[in-house]
Amino acid sequence: VRVELVTVGDELLLGDTINGNAAWLGRTLAGHGIEVTRSVVVADQQDEIIQAVQEALGRADAVITTGGLGPTYDDLTRDALAVAAGVPLTRDPELERRLRERAVAMDRPFVPMVLRMAEVPEGARQLPNPAGTAPGLRITLPGGPVYALPGIPSEMRALVEAEVLPLLLRDAPAGVPMARRILRTAGVWESVVAARLAPVEALDGVRLAYLPDSGEIRVRITATGPDASIVLAAAEEQARELLGHAVYGSGDETLDRVVHRLLAERNATVGTAESLTGGLIGAELTAMPGSSATYAGGVVAYATPLKTALLGVSAALLADGGAVQAQVAAEMAAGVRERLGATYGLAVTGVAGPEPQDGHPVGTVHIAVAGPDGRPQTVSPALPGTGSGERRRVQIRRLTVVHALDLLRRIILGLDVESSWRDDREDREASS
Amino acid sequence: VRVELVTVGDELLLGDTINGNAAWLGRTLAGHGIEVTRSVVVADQQDEIIQAVQEALGRADAVITTGGLGPTYDDLTRDALAVAAGVPLTRDPELERRLRERAVAMDRPFVPMVLRMAEVPEGARQLPNPAGTAPGLRITLPGGPVYALPGIPSEMRALVEAEVLPLLLRDAPAGVPMARRILRTAGVWESVVAARLAPVEALDGVRLAYLPDSGEIRVRITATGPDASIVLAAAEEQARELLGHAVYGSGDETLDRVVHRLLAERNATVGTAESLTGGLIGAELTAMPGSSATYAGGVVAYATPLKTALLGVSAALLADGGAVQAQVAAEMAAGVRERLGATYGLAVTGVAGPEPQDGHPVGTVHIAVAGPDGRPQTVSPALPGTGSGERRRVQIRRLTVVHALDLLRRIILGLDVESSWRDDREDREASS
Repeated sequence: VRVELVTVGDELLLGDTINGNAAWLGRTLAGHGIEVTRSVVVADQQDEIIQAVQEALGRADAVITTGGLGPTYDDLTRDALAVAAGVPLTRDPELERRLRERAVAMDRPFVPMVLRMAEVPEGARQLPNPAGTAPGLRITLPGGPVYALPGIPSEMRALVEAEVLPLLLRDAPAGVPMARRILRTAGVWESVVAARLAPVEALDGVRLAYLPDSGEIRVRITATGPDASIVLAAAEEQARELLGHAVYGSGDETLDRVVHRLLAERNATVGTAESLTGGLIGAELTAMPGSSATYAGGVVAYATPLKTALLGVSAALLADGGAVQAQVAAEMAAGVRERLGATYGLAVTGVAGPEPQDGHPVGTVHIAVAGPDGRPQTVSPALPGTGSGERRRVQIRRLTVVHALDLLRRIILGLDVESSWRDDREDREASS
Repeated sequence: VRVELVTVGDELLLGDTINGNAAWLGRTLAGHGIEVTRSVVVADQQDEIIQAVQEALGRADAVITTGGLGPTYDDLTRDALAVAAGVPLTRDPELERRLRERAVAMDRPFVPMVLRMAEVPEGARQLPNPAGTAPGLRITLPGGPVYALPGIPSEMRALVEAEVLPLLLRDAPAGVPMARRILRTAGVWESVVAARLAPVEALDGVRLAYLPDSGEIRVRITATGPDASIVLAAAEEQARELLGHAVYGSGDETLDRVVHRLLAERNATVGTAESLTGGLIGAELTAMPGSSATYAGGVVAYATPLKTALLGVSAALLADGGAVQAQVAAEMAAGVRERLGATYGLAVTGVAGPEPQDGHPVGTVHIAVAGPDGRPQTVSPALPGTGSGERRRVQIRRLTVVHALDLLRRIILGLDVESSWRDDREDREASS
C-alpha cells in the first residue's frame, strides 16, 4: 500500500509547530510495511485541502489527513472532504449528545461552535476516537479512501493504532515483505562508513541509507523480498563486522544511553571536567531520566586558573604550555575522577573558536578518560567543523561532545584506543 | 512572494528525521513577509523530485528545495534539476579544488564520490555556502526560480540568510511600506503579554504576533502604511512601557548575550552551580565567543553528596529536607560564588522528572543568585511543562535555564525581585 499524508494547518507552514505527526506516521506505517510516498502540508483553506487530497489520491492508494477537525472556523478538513465527495454534512445526534455530556462532565459552558465536531459527511464512516470525543473519518473519494484524523498527537496516534492500521492492512494486497534496521555509528566519516559497507550495498535486495548528524552517522539497512528478515539479519551481521566498534548501538539507542548502560552494567559512574564545551557533556549525560545512578556530576573549568583550583591541574603545566594540551586534559580527567569519587573521569579542553588560542588552530581538541587503572588515556582529534564564526563554534562543541562520549564508551569496553579509535578515524586505505 | 518548499529525503518519509528545516524556513520567511503556501516531502527519487518541483512552480512564485545535495548516490536533487532544466551537469574546477583542499585540511581521505558535490547544472548560479563546502544552487525552470539548499540545518540556515533571502526580497514586488521589530521577553506567560499589549494591538496599521519558544515570548510588531517606521517607533515605545522589565532585548539579542553585556558593563563575572540542568546553563553561557571574559565556570552537583563536597551546602540541611529546597539553591549559589571567586553565583535545583522527588512534584524548581551583597535571593517558580515523560523533562530543563538567566539579569540590573519577577509571572488577573 502506498500512502500519502496531507497535514493541514497554517501553524505548520509558519513554522510555529514542527510536523511531528508526519514523522510519527511515517515511522509507524513503515513498521507495518506500509510506504509513505509523499507528505504535504497545506494551509487552513478549503480549496487547498481539496486540491492536495485529490492530487495525492491520483498517485497513492490511500490518503491520511491530520488536522482541521476541531471546532473553530479555521478547521476545514470536514467541509473540504464533503465538497470533494459531493455530499452534504449532516449532524450526528449521538455525537452531539456525547459532546454535550462532555461539556457537563468538564464543568465547561457548551459553546455552539463545538457542534461542528458532530457533523459528518454523508456516507463517511466514523472511526471511534479512543483518546478524545471527535471521531476520525473514513470517506471514499474517486481515487481511493481518505482517513481524516485530528491533529492532536495523542488522539491521532490512538486512532491510527486502533482504527486506521487494521483497515489499511486489510486493504493491502499481499505485497513484497520489507524489513528495516538502523545501526548507529560515532566518530567515523560518512565516506568511510559508505566505503566499508560497499559489499553490503552490493547484496541482492538490500538498500543502505546514511543519515549524518553532527559526528554521528546512522545507517539504515532495508531488505526487500520474500526472505526480507533473513536477508536483513545477514546484512546487519556483515555490516557490524565491517564497521566493528564504530557501531555503538541500533534503533533508538543514543550514545549517552549506551554509555549509561555500559556504566550501569559495571556498577560504575562517571564525572566530567569540561572546558570548551562549557557543560554540554554534563547536559547530555543528564538528559536521560534516572541518569543520576551513573552520572555523578562535573566541573566546568572555563577560566584557566579554575583548572588548578577546582581540578588540581599543575599550575606550572598551564603556565608553561597553556590550557590546550593533551596533558591538561589528562590531569583534568584524573582530578575530576578523584574529587567526585567517580569510577571514570572524562575531560575535554580545546579551541572552539572563532579565534585561535595560544597558537592552536580552531578545532584543536584534547579528550581524556581516567579510569580505575589510574593512567589517563588521551586522544587529540582535529575537529575543525565547517563554515566560520559562531556556526562553526556550535559545530565544534557538538562534535567534541560526541567524540568524548565515544572515547569513554571505547575505554569502558576495554578497547585499545590506538587500534580502535584511530583506525576508525584515520582509515584511508579502506575509504579511497 | 509565494514560496513552496520541497524537502527531499527518504529519512523524512520514514520518520527517522523530523522536518525541522521546513519549520525553520516557514518561520524565517514569514518574518520577512514571504508566505510559505505549501510544503512537500518527497523520496530520494529523481522523477519524484522533478514532479514535485514542477507542480510547486505551477502554483508558487519560487521553490526552495532542501536535501539531496550531498555526495552519495541517493543525493539526487542536483541531477533532478538538471533534467528538469534540460541541461547537462558540468564539473566546476574551482569547487573540485576546494573539496580537495578541504580533505587535506581536515586530514581526511579524498573519496572520488565527493566530486559529485562539484557538479553544477549548466547555467545554474552557485550560492556560496558560509557554513560548508558545497554551494547552494539557483536555477530558473519554466515557472520560476528554484533555490536548492543542502539538508544539513546549519548550512541550510546560513545559505538562506546570506543568499536566498536577499534574492527573494529583491524579486518581491514593491508593496506597501512595512516596518518590523521583534521585542524579546522572558518569564512572562503568552496570555499576560497579549493582555498587556491590547492597547498596542488596537493601534491603526499595527499588527502583533506572538512567537513563544520555551519560556520566552518574542513579540513581532509590524507596522504598515506610508509612515510605517514612525508608527512602528511609537508602537514599540508603548509596548516597552506596558511590558516593563519583561522585555530583555530586541532583534537577535538573546538572553545569554544580554547577561554577558550587563556583566561586562560592570566588570563582573558569574559562576554557576547546577543540579537538574546538568550543565545546560554553563553551556548557554559559553555559547557566545569571548564569553570567558564574564563566565568563570561552574559545578554540576548532580549527585546530592556533591552539593556538600563541591559547594559547601550544609549536610544537615540536605539530610533534613533533601536536595529540592530554596535554601539548598541559596547555599549552592553562595558556595559557587565563593569557590570560583566570581562576582555572582547562579544556582538551580529541582525536579525535572519524569518521577517526583522527595515528595516534590515534577517541575518544582528553585533558583538562587548570590551577589556582592552576600545575601542570596531565591525564586521558586513552578515549571510543570506540558505532555509527559521525557519530552516534559526536556521542557522543564530548558525552562529552568531561561528563568535562571532571567533572574540573574534582573538582579544584575538591581531590580527588586519581589516587584519585578513576581509581577511578571503571577499577573493572572491581567491575563484572564
